[in-house]
Amino acid sequence: MNTASAPAEEPRWLTDEEQRTWRAYMHAATLLEDHLDRQLQRDAGMPHVYYGLLVQLVEAPRRRLRMTELAMNAKITRSRLSHAIARLEKNGWVRREDCPSDKRGQFAVLTDQGHQMLSKAAPGHVSAVRQAFFDRLTPEQHQALGDAMRVIAEGLQPKDAGADLPWLR
Amino acid sequence: MNTASAPAEEPRWLTDEEQRTWRAYMHAATLLEDHLDRQLQRDAGMPHVYYGLLVQLVEAPRRRLRMTELAMNAKITRSRLSHAIARLEKNGWVRREDCPSDKRGQFAVLTDQGHQMLSKAAPGHVSAVRQAFFDRLTPEQHQALGDAMRVIAEGLQPKDAGADLPWLR
Repeated sequence: MNTASAPAEEPRWLTDEEQRTWRAYMHAATLLEDHLDRQLQRDAGMPHVYYGLLVQLVEAPRRRLRMTELAMNAKITRSRLSHAIARLEKNGWVRREDCPSDKRGQFAVLTDQGHQMLSKAAPGHVSAVRQAFFDRLTPEQHQALGDAMRVIAEGLQPKDAGADLPWLR
Repeated sequence: MNTASAPAEEPRWLTDEEQRTWRAYMHAATLLEDHLDRQLQRDAGMPHVYYGLLVQLVEAPRRRLRMTELAMNAKITRSRLSHAIARLEKNGWVRREDCPSDKRGQFAVLTDQGHQMLSKAAPGHVSAVRQAFFDRLTPEQHQALGDAMRVIAEGLQPKDAGADLPWLR
């Protein structure tokens, strides 16, 4: 679609090849998120993003992380995280603890019940990720995709103080 | 995390390299969707998924598509599509028309106002997609990423009658 009037301001429209890549990316990303959400809802009663939070906690020292760090690692807003943690707390999988050294700080802690839940859900989830993603890639594609995604993720997290990042909102 | 007891059933856990790729992918996908949603909300008053629907319509013959086709192309559920189209209709950008040959069928049609809105929003959006995505990729990465994403998207859309696909729910 070409709608600009001044040639000097002509946008650099996507080429046919770029359009194909962009659509393939959007389709794969949308289908993958739907697929993994369905798989985890069915097998573990939680959406994909909740599972990612539990994985972060199980890998953290003493199975706990500051809420701010959890939001930053998950790339989500603080309000979305609060909502997720409230639900996980209700299920008995996470508990919140105040931070002794910082009145405003709070930790999320994985409970034993949460750990058991995660251990039960992990084999099915890793198998779903393999089937949908890794098993379909050649080693070259795996490498290139990893490199490309790292560069894109870094580019979207500028270090400037005023950057519009989900966890700073 | 290794929790299986029977060696025969040992899940194929992700290698360190696979974990890095998976996290980079998840981070980039989450940040990209947030970034493009914010850009379009700010500049055009709509989320990214709505913009994608308008683009589909502008490219269709007579700027109209069946609702079922629109949901399939966008890889979303029919209920999510209905909700989106209701909002776009309220903005005057889309109207619905009954299908003369199929009582249950309905078309979504891009209005002139919707077309104008899209023309205004397109340059800013294509520039955001370039900056965040294409400008960061080498030609080899672009090629590999396109190929990988096509394979992943195809794998997630099996042809079987009972496949659990968003637009068939």
